[in-house]
Amino acid sequence: MMKEVDRVEMAIQESLSGHSCALISGGDPGIYAMAGLVFELCQKKGIPVYRPGAPASRNTPPAGLPPEPGPDGETGLILEIVPGIPALAAGAALAGAPLTHDFAAISLSDLLTKWEAIEKRITYAAMADFVIVIYNPRSRKRTWQLERAQKLILAHRDKATPVAVVTGAMRDNQEIVFTRLDQLHTAPVGMQTVLFIGSSTTATYMDFIFTPRGYTDKYTVVSGTSDRQNAATPDQEAT
Amino acid sequence: MMKEVDRVEMAIQESLSGHSCALISGGDPGIYAMAGLVFELCQKKGIPVYRPGAPASRNTPPAGLPPEPGPDGETGLILEIVPGIPALAAGAALAGAPLTHDFAAISLSDLLTKWEAIEKRITYAAMADFVIVIYNPRSRKRTWQLERAQKLILAHRDKATPVAVVTGAMRDNQEIVFTRLDQLHTAPVGMQTVLFIGSSTTATYMDFIFTPRGYTDKYTVVSGTSDRQNAATPDQEAT
Repeated sequence: MMKEVDRVEMAIQESLSGHSCALISGGDPGIYAMAGLVFELCQKKGIPVYRPGAPASRNTPPAGLPPEPGPDGETGLILEIVPGIPALAAGAALAGAPLTHDFAAISLSDLLTKWEAIEKRITYAAMADFVIVIYNPRSRKRTWQLERAQKLILAHRDKATPVAVVTGAMRDNQEIVFTRLDQLHTAPVGMQTVLFIGSSTTATYMDFIFTPRGYTDKYTVVSGTSDRQNAATPDQEAT
Repeated sequence: MMKEVDRVEMAIQESLSGHSCALISGGDPGIYAMAGLVFELCQKKGIPVYRPGAPASRNTPPAGLPPEPGPDGETGLILEIVPGIPALAAGAALAGAPLTHDFAAISLSDLLTKWEAIEKRITYAAMADFVIVIYNPRSRKRTWQLERAQKLILAHRDKATPVAVVTGAMRDNQEIVFTRLDQLHTAPVGMQTVLFIGSSTTATYMDFIFTPRGYTDKYTVVSGTSDRQNAATPDQEAT
């Protein structure tokens, strides 16, 4: 993490001295990644951050700091955050389709966050029947948190709940293992692993897991055609 | 939604008759999108679904259906799910960095899901201090759910909690509006809107919102350098 702070600091300093700078995260920079750290550091140092000029977008700024020169007289940074494919999307695509319904993403890293707060999130997510996506399940220094999370979730979810264990999604070391919640402690889990723990409706189909939206409960589906007699007026979901 | 069922059915039928077929979603196909429907329909119809040959990946299949010919004697589908950039990542990148800590994604569409279950997820996510990402906040037929969600969250979160309202992320109709939780009911919200409702730590900085990971609380950060005296042993977060 100190390396992350150093990298962001270096990028900020490069940019303030007049060079364009690209700060690159694996996956998406905004999901458990460095985009937040850019704002944290700039806010602490009082360095203004502006959006790139973009006539097509209308921004309504909140009450915040007015544009002012930074501490060394520079006028601040122009920041564009470019989204990527987050590990949760890449991992889900390899597992099947676990995230087609409500889900909660929880990091088990308690280096910067109190473990009690993490436990509360795990427990409440399990009670509210979210699919649970676990980031940072284990590392060299953090070895007991995953089993503790497993126990907390088992208190509210069937022991046979499908789990997908995806390591190194879309990378050379990619590994996909399926298991059940009560066997999760035996799964191969490392620092590049993202776990998908099913909700009460998540199902296994052949070599995949998926969470149904419920289409086939509501609409009668027969081989080759859909039965429109039960169809509600189409309400196109936002994508 | 009937159109979605039709599209997936058509893709399945095309593939079963021997043609490769690409089924395209906006954003990512696995997050509140059609990938799950492929499995739902194939499972209902008893059509086997296989992974593409991939020697580098090790799959441990769960207990499921053995590969068998489908109902018309065909041998099933080979399915590859290709991840994309989900609306939550694109919207977050435009808002700033709201998702750098734990978050819950909740759809307010109660067409296929009981509203009581959705309310429970909203309430528990608020109580456990997740950043909350709201999909499908409103449509022509669903107009009251967002204010109800707002009230539920206000019971557990400060009324000034930052909210980013992102519509048509990365599209021609893109609009980004910032507001606070108690003003959310006045924001321009439509079918292509994704909402980011901050946790208790989500902050506003200039024209952005972000959720701190806590780096700058733990590590002393001074202008130009990072103070290593307080640094813990680096534990590189999985991306």
